[in-house]
Amino acid sequence: MKKQRTQSSGPYRPPNPGKGVLAVPTLRVVAGQYSRQEEDLLAVEEPLEVKLAFGPAARREVQSLAITMRTPGHDEALALGFLFTEGIIGKAADVRSMQRIGQQEAADNILLVELDEAVTVDFNRLSRHFYTSSSCGVCGKASIDMLRSVSCYFPRKAFPKIAAQALTGLPERLVEGQALFGCTGGIHAAAAFDEQGQLLHLCEDVGRHNALDKLIGTALRHGPFPLREQAVMASGRLSFELVQKCVMAGVPILAAVGAPSSLAVELAEQYGMTLIGFLRDGRFNIYCGAERVQLP
Amino acid sequence: MKKQRTQSSGPYRPPNPGKGVLAVPTLRVVAGQYSRQEEDLLAVEEPLEVKLAFGPAARREVQSLAITMRTPGHDEALALGFLFTEGIIGKAADVRSMQRIGQQEAADNILLVELDEAVTVDFNRLSRHFYTSSSCGVCGKASIDMLRSVSCYFPRKAFPKIAAQALTGLPERLVEGQALFGCTGGIHAAAAFDEQGQLLHLCEDVGRHNALDKLIGTALRHGPFPLREQAVMASGRLSFELVQKCVMAGVPILAAVGAPSSLAVELAEQYGMTLIGFLRDGRFNIYCGAERVQLP
Repeated sequence: MKKQRTQSSGPYRPPNPGKGVLAVPTLRVVAGQYSRQEEDLLAVEEPLEVKLAFGPAARREVQSLAITMRTPGHDEALALGFLFTEGIIGKAADVRSMQRIGQQEAADNILLVELDEAVTVDFNRLSRHFYTSSSCGVCGKASIDMLRSVSCYFPRKAFPKIAAQALTGLPERLVEGQALFGCTGGIHAAAAFDEQGQLLHLCEDVGRHNALDKLIGTALRHGPFPLREQAVMASGRLSFELVQKCVMAGVPILAAVGAPSSLAVELAEQYGMTLIGFLRDGRFNIYCGAERVQLP
Repeated sequence: MKKQRTQSSGPYRPPNPGKGVLAVPTLRVVAGQYSRQEEDLLAVEEPLEVKLAFGPAARREVQSLAITMRTPGHDEALALGFLFTEGIIGKAADVRSMQRIGQQEAADNILLVELDEAVTVDFNRLSRHFYTSSSCGVCGKASIDMLRSVSCYFPRKAFPKIAAQALTGLPERLVEGQALFGCTGGIHAAAAFDEQGQLLHLCEDVGRHNALDKLIGTALRHGPFPLREQAVMASGRLSFELVQKCVMAGVPILAAVGAPSSLAVELAEQYGMTLIGFLRDGRFNIYCGAERVQLP
């Protein structure tokens, strides 16, 4: 198995929390008996608008694609991952450049993404598609089927394998790797692990879909991609949307601390992914794709 | 303080889980040593498309407003709450009728909402507004300020009061009231409590914003509304979006098991709301509006 580039410079180190954290005063109350004024660190949440420049040189268009509430940091990876998991781009090279074009207070919050001329964007499809969620149809089955037309990567059958013991070690490594969670106690994470359970890369965000888009965007940019040899773990619950993003990126094993939804399991099953829920305290549930999990 | 109508028929009873739950086979692995095939109950996630019929009788229009991934059940309350918290309607009477218009597999998943002729809908503003999140601007401050133009209800100053002891009892009552969480372990809840900490109404959904929209939609329909005399508790973390919805509904006290984001605190502070985070194990943090919390 290939190693992630992030590993070449030594063991994984979480990034400096920096602008992802804000100190605010808080009044702590314990057992209704005692209170004191303290400082608390919160995860920063700010809007990011992604604008797209696209079309042939002669009639180049610029349109606002999406506004997402995100934790600042790794915005380019977020935009890249989002564009890919929404099926707008198929590879990192489809993006020519990205630049901040916001003014004053919004200086960091508007990102103009220049697409390659060859990329066609159908805003009518998108504006409908993005309403509220990334669902593609009006019944779960249709939403699942629709993915076949856009998904580029499918997991390889029964590959890779991961030992049950490696899996039960993931939650601890996830928390260790969370720079922002450590100080705020309130932020989602998505992380990629190798088949030995070693942390390769981790991204944090107030939105769990954003954390996953940042992870996928980073892999798109720096490789290896698709994520066919990696296990991805998410901090929260597994929704349709999270599984959908992983299907797009070819992720074979997806695990989470929390429960999956019915549609998350159905989607994972259809695309041959291994889906693991309630991964904590040395135990987990396998909902599908058990052939990738090695039990003693 | 007025009682919720739901109380008139005796103590609160969680609704029958019914179609909100699906049984699936799962393989449980404990300590990497032992496994068995079992049945697990998952929270159902299915798309709901909300279509709007609006405009004067002579040129009535029908357009798709949003598709949200939700747990089936209380869909009308969800649609009503969503329309209100997005500023499309100002009162329950703005909706003339709601009916299912889906076919076959999608039978339950398309809801046509007939708006009163007097309600004007600006789809251009909405299509931009709904991209990905309910953010209204490209910096947090602008998003907060924008709300002033749509928000109808502001909490009354220093009212109501809630005892610290009543607050610390909320998490237990939240979990007791969660019919779906009890069997699935994986679903969000939003609940309204009176100032003694008694549960008035609770809604569950795979999406925490949906759970809150269901709660607000139920109050809009059956009263009392606005929620100026109630404390609302959410099961997860507090994002900008959740605080925004509560601001729209006049909620004076908002508490959550998890952490608030920076923008959630800023928004609550601006609108005079009491914001409480990390409410669990007999303790909590007050981020703003401490004058509504009575300490011994």
